Amino acid sequence: MERRVKQQIAFILEADKLKNVIRRNYLTDDSRRENTAEHTWHTTLMALLLFDYAENREELDLLHIIRMITIHDLVEIEAGDTFIFDEEANRNKFGRENQAAKKIFSMLPYDQGKEYYDLWLEFEKEETPNAIFAASVDKIMPVLLNTRSKGTSWREAEITADKVFNTLKIIGKGPKKIQELLKELVKESREKGNLM
Amino acid sequence: MERRVKQQIAFILEADKLKNVIRRNYLTDDSRRENTAEHTWHTTLMALLLFDYAENREELDLLHIIRMITIHDLVEIEAGDTFIFDEEANRNKFGRENQAAKKIFSMLPYDQGKEYYDLWLEFEKEETPNAIFAASVDKIMPVLLNTRSKGTSWREAEITADKVFNTLKIIGKGPKKIQELLKELVKESREKGNLM
Repeated sequence: MERRVKQQIAFILEADKLKNVIRRNYLTDDSRRENTAEHTWHTTLMALLLFDYAENREELDLLHIIRMITIHDLVEIEAGDTFIFDEEANRNKFGRENQAAKKIFSMLPYDQGKEYYDLWLEFEKEETPNAIFAASVDKIMPVLLNTRSKGTSWREAEITADKVFNTLKIIGKGPKKIQELLKELVKESREKGNLM
Repeated sequence: MERRVKQQIAFILEADKLKNVIRRNYLTDDSRRENTAEHTWHTTLMALLLFDYAENREELDLLHIIRMITIHDLVEIEAGDTFIFDEEANRNKFGRENQAAKKIFSMLPYDQGKEYYDLWLEFEKEETPNAIFAASVDKIMPVLLNTRSKGTSWREAEITADKVFNTLKIIGKGPKKIQELLKELVKESREKGNLM
């Protein structure tokens, strides 16, 4: 096997570990917490479905968005999942994940490793139209799962509606339809008692 | 919430069930069998990585390939996972999955449901260049995981190298690099005793 393929295979096998990284939120049937690999698939599906609602389609590249979503959580293999409402853990999140990104993407052939690191960084910065769309979808997904399940991860941490709006501010820059969805889901969660 | 968004949200929540559909093969750490949602993410990642090896790039559309991969296994929510080497179960697989596809994609707004059903059918038929590339990646993935783990799902079913080559014939129409990879992985699996 030539060196390039060997590197790619080693990376794919390393990526397998993302299936054992456990997030805070539960599946909608409340049977168990979600892992990051399956979350990423679900987010990709949602991005494909909700792309229709992007107002600035001419600025967006859906393939680029999907690439970002697919690779952005690989850093969790090294850095673990950081609960979005854990302010303390989020203070040094970028530093920890940046180190992890350098480590994992350097397993790839240089050109691909650089491309993936740049995609990761673009997603994290949430500045480009593509990254804002991708982040909006990534952030609305656990809100949906928490609302349409018992919301255990929110209840455990006594999350408030204000905290959701403040923490997910990036959605305010995304498609209006996702902003509306956030408001409706938060309202529903408050009514059910999933959010304080 | 308007009807279109309601339908899309209901579909996304239904899709959550794919995280509880269990495949035969194990993770590379042999800790548990893989679920279909995380398999789909892993396959998307591999398709992005190996697209460089497609010889007929001008005939291919990577976004279209990713769309097919992302949605093609949703039928398993209704029809369950069918072990690729189970000849009996594979005889009526298309019929069962076709019914499942009609059911699940009809949850979506008509235009999107039709688009996704057509993507599913294209993937299943393995005729277009995009479907052949997508199927090649989807089929090589469990070979990689079975080779670089204890290969328990192959050992349990006493799978032979010939059976792998005969069952995964579609890879013969895919990128040469994936064909070579299949040969090397099968050789490695025979040496380890994962394949008979």
